[in-house]
Amino acid sequence: MSAQSSLAGSPVVAEVDFAAKGRQAGHLRVPQSRDDSGWGTIPVPIVVVANGSGPTMLLTAGNHGDEYEGQVALLDLARTLKPEQVQGRVIIIPAMHYPACAAGKRLSPLDGRDFNRCFPGDPFGGFALSLAHYIDSVLLPLCDYQQDLHSGGTGMDIVASTAGHVLDDAGLQAKTLAMADAFNAPVTMLLREVNAGPTLLAQAEARGVVALSSELGGGGRLNPANLAITRRGVANLLRHAGILDGKPEITTPSRRMTVPDLAHYVFAPCDGIWEAADILGSSVEAGAPAGLLHRIEDPTGPAIPLSYAATGLLWCVRHAGRVKVGDPVAVIARDL
Amino acid sequence: MSAQSSLAGSPVVAEVDFAAKGRQAGHLRVPQSRDDSGWGTIPVPIVVVANGSGPTMLLTAGNHGDEYEGQVALLDLARTLKPEQVQGRVIIIPAMHYPACAAGKRLSPLDGRDFNRCFPGDPFGGFALSLAHYIDSVLLPLCDYQQDLHSGGTGMDIVASTAGHVLDDAGLQAKTLAMADAFNAPVTMLLREVNAGPTLLAQAEARGVVALSSELGGGGRLNPANLAITRRGVANLLRHAGILDGKPEITTPSRRMTVPDLAHYVFAPCDGIWEAADILGSSVEAGAPAGLLHRIEDPTGPAIPLSYAATGLLWCVRHAGRVKVGDPVAVIARDL
Amino acid sequence: MSAQSSLAGSPVVAEVDFAAKGRQAGHLRVPQSRDDSGWGTIPVPIVVVANGSGPTMLLTAGNHGDEYEGQVALLDLARTLKPEQVQGRVIIIPAMHYPACAAGKRLSPLDGRDFNRCFPGDPFGGFALSLAHYIDSVLLPLCDYQQDLHSGGTGMDIVASTAGHVLDDAGLQAKTLAMADAFNAPVTMLLREVNAGPTLLAQAEARGVVALSSELGGGGRLNPANLAITRRGVANLLRHAGILDGKPEITTPSRRMTVPDLAHYVFAPCDGIWEAADILGSSVEAGAPAGLLHRIEDPTGPAIPLSYAATGLLWCVRHAGRVKVGDPVAVIARDL
Amino acid sequence: MSAQSSLAGSPVVAEVDFAAKGRQAGHLRVPQSRDDSGWGTIPVPIVVVANGSGPTMLLTAGNHGDEYEGQVALLDLARTLKPEQVQGRVIIIPAMHYPACAAGKRLSPLDGRDFNRCFPGDPFGGFALSLAHYIDSVLLPLCDYQQDLHSGGTGMDIVASTAGHVLDDAGLQAKTLAMADAFNAPVTMLLREVNAGPTLLAQAEARGVVALSSELGGGGRLNPANLAITRRGVANLLRHAGILDGKPEITTPSRRMTVPDLAHYVFAPCDGIWEAADILGSSVEAGAPAGLLHRIEDPTGPAIPLSYAATGLLWCVRHAGRVKVGDPVAVIARDL
Amino acid sequence: MSAQSSLAGSPVVAEVDFAAKGRQAGHLRVPQSRDDSGWGTIPVPIVVVANGSGPTMLLTAGNHGDEYEGQVALLDLARTLKPEQVQGRVIIIPAMHYPACAAGKRLSPLDGRDFNRCFPGDPFGGFALSLAHYIDSVLLPLCDYQQDLHSGGTGMDIVASTAGHVLDDAGLQAKTLAMADAFNAPVTMLLREVNAGPTLLAQAEARGVVALSSELGGGGRLNPANLAITRRGVANLLRHAGILDGKPEITTPSRRMTVPDLAHYVFAPCDGIWEAADILGSSVEAGAPAGLLHRIEDPTGPAIPLSYAATGLLWCVRHAGRVKVGDPVAVIARDL
Amino acid sequence: MSAQSSLAGSPVVAEVDFAAKGRQAGHLRVPQSRDDSGWGTIPVPIVVVANGSGPTMLLTAGNHGDEYEGQVALLDLARTLKPEQVQGRVIIIPAMHYPACAAGKRLSPLDGRDFNRCFPGDPFGGFALSLAHYIDSVLLPLCDYQQDLHSGGTGMDIVASTAGHVLDDAGLQAKTLAMADAFNAPVTMLLREVNAGPTLLAQAEARGVVALSSELGGGGRLNPANLAITRRGVANLLRHAGILDGKPEITTPSRRMTVPDLAHYVFAPCDGIWEAADILGSSVEAGAPAGLLHRIEDPTGPAIPLSYAATGLLWCVRHAGRVKVGDPVAVIARDL
Ligand SMILES: [Ca+2]
Ligand SMILES: [Ca+2]
Ligand SMILES: [Ca+2]
Ligand SMILES: [Ca+2]
Ligand SMILES: [Ca+2]
Ligand SMILES: [Ca+2]
Repeated sequence: MSAQSSLAGSPVVAEVDFAAKGRQAGHLRVPQSRDDSGWGTIPVPIVVVANGSGPTMLLTAGNHGDEYEGQVALLDLARTLKPEQVQGRVIIIPAMHYPACAAGKRLSPLDGRDFNRCFPGDPFGGFALSLAHYIDSVLLPLCDYQQDLHSGGTGMDIVASTAGHVLDDAGLQAKTLAMADAFNAPVTMLLREVNAGPTLLAQAEARGVVALSSELGGGGRLNPANLAITRRGVANLLRHAGILDGKPEITTPSRRMTVPDLAHYVFAPCDGIWEAADILGSSVEAGAPAGLLHRIEDPTGPAIPLSYAATGLLWCVRHAGRVKVGDPVAVIARDL
Repeated sequence: MSAQSSLAGSPVVAEVDFAAKGRQAGHLRVPQSRDDSGWGTIPVPIVVVANGSGPTMLLTAGNHGDEYEGQVALLDLARTLKPEQVQGRVIIIPAMHYPACAAGKRLSPLDGRDFNRCFPGDPFGGFALSLAHYIDSVLLPLCDYQQDLHSGGTGMDIVASTAGHVLDDAGLQAKTLAMADAFNAPVTMLLREVNAGPTLLAQAEARGVVALSSELGGGGRLNPANLAITRRGVANLLRHAGILDGKPEITTPSRRMTVPDLAHYVFAPCDGIWEAADILGSSVEAGAPAGLLHRIEDPTGPAIPLSYAATGLLWCVRHAGRVKVGDPVAVIARDL
Repeated sequence: MSAQSSLAGSPVVAEVDFAAKGRQAGHLRVPQSRDDSGWGTIPVPIVVVANGSGPTMLLTAGNHGDEYEGQVALLDLARTLKPEQVQGRVIIIPAMHYPACAAGKRLSPLDGRDFNRCFPGDPFGGFALSLAHYIDSVLLPLCDYQQDLHSGGTGMDIVASTAGHVLDDAGLQAKTLAMADAFNAPVTMLLREVNAGPTLLAQAEARGVVALSSELGGGGRLNPANLAITRRGVANLLRHAGILDGKPEITTPSRRMTVPDLAHYVFAPCDGIWEAADILGSSVEAGAPAGLLHRIEDPTGPAIPLSYAATGLLWCVRHAGRVKVGDPVAVIARDL
Repeated sequence: MSAQSSLAGSPVVAEVDFAAKGRQAGHLRVPQSRDDSGWGTIPVPIVVVANGSGPTMLLTAGNHGDEYEGQVALLDLARTLKPEQVQGRVIIIPAMHYPACAAGKRLSPLDGRDFNRCFPGDPFGGFALSLAHYIDSVLLPLCDYQQDLHSGGTGMDIVASTAGHVLDDAGLQAKTLAMADAFNAPVTMLLREVNAGPTLLAQAEARGVVALSSELGGGGRLNPANLAITRRGVANLLRHAGILDGKPEITTPSRRMTVPDLAHYVFAPCDGIWEAADILGSSVEAGAPAGLLHRIEDPTGPAIPLSYAATGLLWCVRHAGRVKVGDPVAVIARDL
Repeated sequence: MSAQSSLAGSPVVAEVDFAAKGRQAGHLRVPQSRDDSGWGTIPVPIVVVANGSGPTMLLTAGNHGDEYEGQVALLDLARTLKPEQVQGRVIIIPAMHYPACAAGKRLSPLDGRDFNRCFPGDPFGGFALSLAHYIDSVLLPLCDYQQDLHSGGTGMDIVASTAGHVLDDAGLQAKTLAMADAFNAPVTMLLREVNAGPTLLAQAEARGVVALSSELGGGGRLNPANLAITRRGVANLLRHAGILDGKPEITTPSRRMTVPDLAHYVFAPCDGIWEAADILGSSVEAGAPAGLLHRIEDPTGPAIPLSYAATGLLWCVRHAGRVKVGDPVAVIARDL
Repeated sequence: MSAQSSLAGSPVVAEVDFAAKGRQAGHLRVPQSRDDSGWGTIPVPIVVVANGSGPTMLLTAGNHGDEYEGQVALLDLARTLKPEQVQGRVIIIPAMHYPACAAGKRLSPLDGRDFNRCFPGDPFGGFALSLAHYIDSVLLPLCDYQQDLHSGGTGMDIVASTAGHVLDDAGLQAKTLAMADAFNAPVTMLLREVNAGPTLLAQAEARGVVALSSELGGGGRLNPANLAITRRGVANLLRHAGILDGKPEITTPSRRMTVPDLAHYVFAPCDGIWEAADILGSSVEAGAPAGLLHRIEDPTGPAIPLSYAATGLLWCVRHAGRVKVGDPVAVIARDL
């Protein structure tokens, strides 16, 4: 028998009413069968604040569980946002891929899945696919805006950036750039849309939602400077959309950049310990040394020197000291 | 090379001839590649008893490996049913999801799959999907009736019930109810068909087979009273279909009930040890205490009281003492 | 570096002061290094209630994590016991092998250890050995009495019993029997001391503490009748020791029994599903059928009949339906 | 964000230019996200040698990681083949399912997948599906010929054979047989195409590529005699296609055989140690003893005798001594 | 509670009476607690045949689970040996490290232990240590002779040999050599006793038992020629001891050899696929090529040539094609 | 058989001759049996540089595999140190717990062991215990000085420090402090010796070697500033011992500090995301806020504020954003 799944159009059930006004806190209840609990569920916390009339914005973090700036900024917002401040609707999911967030891991401790490769999902494909299906088919259709808050995770550190796609739809593109300008991260990263993979961002775009992803730091830690950027960026987005009063607070305008091809990556050719030549955010030149890869298996052989193959901003660096063959140790961005 | 898969229309091969009369015992041979046996197979025992003319009934148990009443009742039937007793055909698979049955687990020890979310299957998707595909595409088309014998498993204890869906097809619905009446479990549970999930029952219905699931006890044990209900129920079904002589033995008529929505569930709001206020089968009232959740992490804080949100029969209770957040600890049924 | 371990004589640090009067709740902080937290600890909740003068009793549960009567009875006691009720000292550890309790498993999810085979422990041998060493070397020397509250766990159901050893020391033996009489479980199980294994009970005896183990139900669930016996038993022990006022509440005197040898066990000769002939607590005869072992791999062969080889009380039965070769399915006790 | 996946039509990026002439060595860079490297990749070595005009042949080994003759033969070819020897193009992937090859296992150490059941793949389905998708959608369209070099792996030893399908397309069939004749393995195994499963061979055929699989020994080792057959066979194919100068070296013409049905298999009816009656390559008779299955659980019961059910060549034998129920211990081939 | 452990001097209980005459088959019942069976046991089959007067010989196989010649030879003996053939006592344990034998693995599937590094054991240290303790403390004291039947296992193939130690006790040494001569394997390998490690052989010697280990083939398979040597060798030992009538059947006298130091090993300096230059049993010269190590990570670099550093018999070779850094690929023996 | 273990007094064999002069690079070959390589070894790289007369210093890093400053500093030294620079002997093991270093993990990927809790080891207790036994019993007796280079690892970031114990032996204490002064890390941490745990440092002290541990950064990364401190510190030690010419380069004298008790730790009372109030190296006050613990399970409840209980230097902070109950998030040091 499948008692729960018979109760709704998707096996996921929300404890909040998206059509109601005011402030609600509850869960998305996602089935997760265990050997000792056949009808077990995993409740994913969700907060909805709605008032008056205005657009709907979906704010998500914890797509990857080891990316913390977004989770904390949204927990703060969820604790403090009052209906009377709002015109429209804000849907907040601070720890979306909940099992990964609870473990502090990028990938699911249940099945190793990368949640951001699970869209548009499958209602009965397991926790991650089932939740992705719900977000895509139930939540995105409610939305005008969507911001998914990422950082670089355990392995990478990244210059705080929002990230969007180069879109065929000029109108949607303009709205996306305006949204990124309002967020006002130091960098706005624009990547080609072709074959973006089954991400939440790609799915939001496919549904015509004005949407951004982001990379707001990393290194597996909560960086205070990046947390401040994230908190301000989220408030800016709500102001930009007219959901909160006021104008976005803009410091230096965001720098629009891209990573055009694989030549802007430096990959580790073998396992080793990475000693970088430059710090995150440096300006680097093609041909210059990127760093040394030290090999513990051969203490008398030389460390392996790697060089940049492109000129630009050292936008992303390997954080973790130990790297495996094929890991990127540096990514260069250039201005658009 | 894939030598075996070239031998038949599905990689699953039956050692029995479904068109033959008499009694046959053999296996469904399902490929399962291992590192040390590339062309390994898992043989799933199957017994077919056919004679004269009459309908075909597929009897299955061990869809979940830790549900025992059905497995034992079908092993008994497989041992004892003689062709001369039969008009028609009985196909018996006492331990369907064989690796889970051999492990005494709900989910597959091979890949964690819930077999009852694997339909309609995939011929090359691994053991569970491959077997589900065979049952759906080869066996169900042979059938007039299908009974899948479940219990509550390790985690739950349930008032012995057959279970069916509310169907759009009035004719099929009437036949289903007549089948449930004949089985004569204490309860007949009827659930809405919408989004039933990829179960064997849903797939049987989709193929127009008169079909039931069931919940015949649980607690991870073989309950003698429920085993007696199951044995009699199975015999009743065969009599009802005219495959065996005689009429179903009916004691008290089965009570038709439903679980209409999530308000009929009580979920654990956090991990703990569950102390239930009532025993399985009690009549309970909305607002009454359902029990206490004891938290080992805080021995000086109070136990958490939970209440029922609906009135009805305490149809399903948590068996295992330790619960995780999101586990149902009680499910209430109401009469139709 | 090992910063923490340098702070005390054992790496385990108590947040409570065992010499202080009044009521304290805190933790035993046991080091447990993880890849992402080198100096991580697991805090095990402990409550101490001391007042006036009188003996010290150590009450423990959760030695095995899937045994619930003791855990809940001690959580209740920890919540409610007030210093002014006490003459002496009560040390309460309701969920001793904490990782196993949090998982609801008999054995440690960290390393598979059975905590009750870890005594007298090893201060740096990992969580279980380190905690066992602390309990043995720091707590037991403080004690006059020790009661370790067990049940049968996931696999077994047992007639509610305290359990002690046949001891060479007649004085200690008499005190132990008096303690068991006071607990007033339906059965007092006495086993030979020889080679008892490295259990908490054996270690308490070795230190001259008047000590009991117990088996207070099982089946992986919290049984209300057994919980009532346990709550009353614990209160009785405190009254017996003079720590609480009043006399033990005695119903029917406890029946003193033993399991003299392996002939009192029935073991499964192969894997299968166990169908018992009798219910727990039955009087059974040597030679009578104990039940049937049903084999899913051979649905046409006969179920395997097993018989009792001894006469007595069916003191312990297999709960879980699926058994593996070598599992006991029945244990017979006889009166002393 | 998914920076890499935006760089190309598939997330897999080749470091070689398939349109260029000369000799190139590089990698197929396949994304594999890890908890500590979100944008990690696994580089799969690939060598391309192209010159003048002529057909394209894709040579692959390491589809299963524990099959060594093909891997070593292609490593040799990759080291030594010079552009000036070639008319056309040779694409060499010596260790295709790279993680399995690095582990020396049939199945993936990442997710247990059998790479030869992953076609036609899925660009974002994980390493194996993503690589299979690239090979199918990018590489096969470039090809006139494809040879996938298998052996029997850890579990089986097989008479050195190429293997193809019985095809509806007579022209493709003739070219396939000519290709197999040129390879000149001792046996050419032809199997029915129906339901071949999602293999590289089936996908190559579906794209109209003249294609073969093979079984060139096994037993988990590198057999020198089979390595010699494989090296010569690969060179013969290149000559046959006109890519290398000269004619194939033919010794004894290859024997065309088939395995018509399951009666040509002997399966283990239970776990045990297999003692074969005959050696690989023997001529065997239906009804003759195939060997004995020794059961360690019952040292006083008889070993279980198994017999052949068909007459022919003992084409494949179980190598590993320990077998599980359902493992094939012998496969008989008959001449076409 | 620990009901079972209180029943005997070790928690292991034998179902056979070692003092009785005649033929008995039963088990050593070794406790193995599981989450779902706290008092579970693993029964290890044992057969004892005793008659008249004479010495006691303990014959064991399955010390490592993937070594098959000894297991099958002892299963044959256990099936056929009759009391009337015997003067003295034969204790046969055909599959000693039972969980490893059932899995067909060298190491324990329970905890990864190598049984032959578990002596003299620990009665409560888990299955392997508990069984080792029983064999050492209960069985070895009963014995005059002990033969432990090994082969090379999955990874290695070895010239069929018995193996003993160079002993300080000249009398024991002479008896050991006589025992080895009687077994009449092609090679008698003698190794220095110093620091032999905690093996069954070392423990038998420490107790003054005339004892041998052996290496009777390997490659993870059952080799018929080696099985014949093993069967004859076991019968020869029983004749040599006077337990069976008759004289040992001696073919060519066994060649006494040793492996004096690490220079007689060839180790893999990195991971790769091993292509040996010579076959097992060849005479090889120091400085000659031992083979090539092929590296899949670098298809254009050369294979790595390895050479022998000693002259002698190629006594042991790597069977499995894939090797890891540090694996021996060849071991050279020289005549004593 | 145990061929290798018979070759030397410990199963570990060194490929270098510690008595020889000049520069040698080789391995410590430590047995590690695998299912597919019974006599497999793990070679641990070691470099020895000896010349003239003078003391012996053992330099080790990679005791925990995710601590990188020491590994890289010693790889540099191993690559560059020439015999003619040396008076005495330098033994360098840059990646001691090799499997953990290769994985970039604190604990062993083989068995989860913390290498720094494995001393004094056990020759046959598995890789870590076997290597620890060799280092203790073979290498430490050769040494006058020992420096074990640690950092904070994945979970913690620590002010660069050497670390030693408060010792009873005043002479050894003075030499230890002089050694620490020479290393000249910003902080010299002194901890009480009592119950230091089974570390390499404690074992070196027990053997009378002048020895230090250290904490040279952390956060799972290679910090350039800390790498510079480490390189200079190692050179300083060699100068201090007279092995290299010249005097230690001293910048600001090292600050001698201690962590006196658990009140100097701040522990997480539950799981959450840690937002620190201060950065590493701050001066903090008892009672001041240490930070906030954000809980994803309750987005509307407040974050949990934690405070310091001691005044001093914020010597160690939690790096990883996600913490579990019992993890230290801050450690305060005070001046001695
Ligand atoms: Ca991310
Ligand atoms: Ca079920
Ligand atoms: Ca217990
Ligand atoms: Ca293959
Ligand atoms: Ca062996
Ligand atoms: Ca460390």
